[in-house]
Amino acid sequence: MFRTVLIANRGEIALRVARACRELGIRVAVVYSTEDTDSEVVRYADEAVRIGPGAAQASYLSIPAVVEAARRTGADAIHPGYGFLSENADFAEVCAAEGITFIGPPPDVMEALGDKSTCRALMADAGLPLLPGTLEPVSSPREAEARAAEIGFPVVVKAVAGGGGRGIGVAYSAAEFPTVFRETRRHAAAVFGDGRVYLERYLESARHVEIQVLADRFGNVVHLGERDCSVQRRHQKLIEEAPAPGLDEDVVAAMAEHAVQGAKAARYVGAGTFEFLYDGSGRFYFMEVNCRIQVEHPVTELVTGVDLVHEQLWIAAGHPLRIGQQDVVPRGCAVECRINAEDAGREFVPTPGLIDELTMPSGPFVRVDTHVRQGSRISVFYDPLLAKVTVWAPDRQRALARMGRALDEVRVEGKGLRTTTDFLHSVIDSGEFSTARHDTGLVGRLLEPAAAAEGAGVTAPSQVQEPPKAS
Amino acid sequence: MFRTVLIANRGEIALRVARACRELGIRVAVVYSTEDTDSEVVRYADEAVRIGPGAAQASYLSIPAVVEAARRTGADAIHPGYGFLSENADFAEVCAAEGITFIGPPPDVMEALGDKSTCRALMADAGLPLLPGTLEPVSSPREAEARAAEIGFPVVVKAVAGGGGRGIGVAYSAAEFPTVFRETRRHAAAVFGDGRVYLERYLESARHVEIQVLADRFGNVVHLGERDCSVQRRHQKLIEEAPAPGLDEDVVAAMAEHAVQGAKAARYVGAGTFEFLYDGSGRFYFMEVNCRIQVEHPVTELVTGVDLVHEQLWIAAGHPLRIGQQDVVPRGCAVECRINAEDAGREFVPTPGLIDELTMPSGPFVRVDTHVRQGSRISVFYDPLLAKVTVWAPDRQRALARMGRALDEVRVEGKGLRTTTDFLHSVIDSGEFSTARHDTGLVGRLLEPAAAAEGAGVTAPSQVQEPPKAS
Repeated sequence: MFRTVLIANRGEIALRVARACRELGIRVAVVYSTEDTDSEVVRYADEAVRIGPGAAQASYLSIPAVVEAARRTGADAIHPGYGFLSENADFAEVCAAEGITFIGPPPDVMEALGDKSTCRALMADAGLPLLPGTLEPVSSPREAEARAAEIGFPVVVKAVAGGGGRGIGVAYSAAEFPTVFRETRRHAAAVFGDGRVYLERYLESARHVEIQVLADRFGNVVHLGERDCSVQRRHQKLIEEAPAPGLDEDVVAAMAEHAVQGAKAARYVGAGTFEFLYDGSGRFYFMEVNCRIQVEHPVTELVTGVDLVHEQLWIAAGHPLRIGQQDVVPRGCAVECRINAEDAGREFVPTPGLIDELTMPSGPFVRVDTHVRQGSRISVFYDPLLAKVTVWAPDRQRALARMGRALDEVRVEGKGLRTTTDFLHSVIDSGEFSTARHDTGLVGRLLEPAAAAEGAGVTAPSQVQEPPKAS
Repeated sequence: MFRTVLIANRGEIALRVARACRELGIRVAVVYSTEDTDSEVVRYADEAVRIGPGAAQASYLSIPAVVEAARRTGADAIHPGYGFLSENADFAEVCAAEGITFIGPPPDVMEALGDKSTCRALMADAGLPLLPGTLEPVSSPREAEARAAEIGFPVVVKAVAGGGGRGIGVAYSAAEFPTVFRETRRHAAAVFGDGRVYLERYLESARHVEIQVLADRFGNVVHLGERDCSVQRRHQKLIEEAPAPGLDEDVVAAMAEHAVQGAKAARYVGAGTFEFLYDGSGRFYFMEVNCRIQVEHPVTELVTGVDLVHEQLWIAAGHPLRIGQQDVVPRGCAVECRINAEDAGREFVPTPGLIDELTMPSGPFVRVDTHVRQGSRISVFYDPLLAKVTVWAPDRQRALARMGRALDEVRVEGKGLRTTTDFLHSVIDSGEFSTARHDTGLVGRLLEPAAAAEGAGVTAPSQVQEPPKAS
């Protein structure tokens, strides 16, 4: 096992990884920005290195700064968490060149899967079902229009370099297609430095279901079942759960088998997630692979009893998987709510500020992952995730009742601070969610009840401008 | 299900029961003493009734005050928690007379099991193995001396009305027997108003192992496996775990079967615990039945996934058990540490005071049950339990590593306040405990290393004056 792991991240995931390291007797080093000087993980770590100012570009996204911190702390491995450098193949390559283990898949695997076009082609070869669309990028507007007409509207235009809900645009008709195509290409070029896009059929009423896999360097792959992450706003997940409610066992088993096939085809190593869209009538389609630990990993941990970060470290240390497929026996139901510092009533605008009062839920079958405490300042620089509240129960009904109880215990007070807590409670209580008749359009419908009146399952274009994908 | 449950208790267990009620949609009423006016559960409850001053005799132990509170709040059931009135058959009888459901076994069952002499006779009839001893109380000193000699020393003198580690004395030789016999009788008469005592062989090097059962009104009984509670000081448990480490599966299965037989023979109803002493070489002996939820119930909840308080409420509402024996599939290992406001360096003397700073552990597979927060005052009137920290892992080694990590996160600061945290950590880290070679004498040996040098498994009389039983 590693002697020192450097955590190249912040917030709850940095603390979560630090705890795993402690449990394994690994020394904990972290990087931090000036903005995070007083953070919990800085106190928690054995060694903390300030690597730059608040802006992530000059701190958490700076490869030289992170690598220098690894050198200074004598780290033999780097855990990138999620976001920031976690899916940056260049970073993984620099780590390798420096003789530092990057805790994640090899650079070439990350590169192939990070390019949506290459990834789709690879997964099509491996037999995974894809939505009708173009395997290759399309550049000519005329060719794109023809292909869009073949695919059928609505069509989604996706940046090859995108992912996690970014770099996508939806055209609901041939008339609006040229504008959407042009705008998405321009956006992709500006944001990712890569204007290539491809086309895909857009599923309007779908469930987001993903399969967690673990793979070692020796070609062994197991899956740890599915997570349903259909409750999203702006393609960011708000509530996740395992198992996926209302899905046929055979469908989930087929999805999981495809994920394992896909991981084997990609020569995947580490913890990864295969995202699918489920159309509500037995068909599902591969979307993308996330080459990192997910925000929502706790729901899988609570139903399987497998500590995914322990297993990431175990695999990265070069060991063969110590969990066989027969050892994965999911039990009960787990639900996670993301408590964000956002105002749900004002289009989820972030509400940074100082936390004057904080109470997190506790007690039976409740897990809290948070990096904030009374006196913490929520920065404008980073994502507004304050805490993840995850509950477990023998079945979904009891899990939702427990989540209601847990959310009732949450108290976050501070000038100007708002959180998603009440909104999450209203989702949990909604008839559509509690009876598992929801899809990725749920949040839009709950926020604008008028849209719901038009009929469940129909997503008004004004609510969802982009396809249902989320990081 | 009940409309309103009155919780006739305080501290962490009151909050834990309140949470269960909330999850089941039951209105929560609580009683409280003047001393507990600012307590968490008073804030948490829908209705709170002040029933008396700090001294428990005039508040939490006052049957008329509690029953009046039930009337005022319109409670249709009372949950007694543990301690206080939880095993008081008179209280259960008054509840019945008032038409209020007492959440626990029927009064006559509680009475029979509460009288240690009747209980032993009942369990002997049901085939449970007992330590050599007298089934009937002995009153004549001469007869007692003769019986003690037959049993063989050391002999323990136990009050018929005792239990939970109270009302017991150990005689290591015939010479000291008369004094111990006389003192224990005098003590029992003074404390319990019942001077009857019986004799039993005293096991010096034993493990405390107990079986959790659930029984309904229709004669159905299931067990939820065992808990090992051998880490005790003054017969109060400090650390509990499930499963019992190092015990043969067959031994545990036999113990569990005896507990189920015993529960059936006693016509037990509700959640109950059968306590056994295990002699380290395959033999075990029935000790007593606890007719209530135990402090240490979370370890069973974490390995079985069964919420014991939910099931208590379910059974008390008159339903048949909804869990069959085949549904009880323990998974992994759970360990609980009791964080007490006590000074382990000064014979665990309670250290009441104001909590200025409080940090409780959090994150993966950690459960915290606590009723305190920053600003809470630890009262001299009640037991010094601040928090229960319970962890789960796939195996004991990882559970202990996780517990070490969790204990490292505990921070309780306040003038004069001391906690058992560091001492618990030293137990977890001790070779004897971590390799499961410990017995009920462990705490004494850790506190006085000189005694340990005399040889593991040998408990110096100066450390343990009474037999290894604990509530």
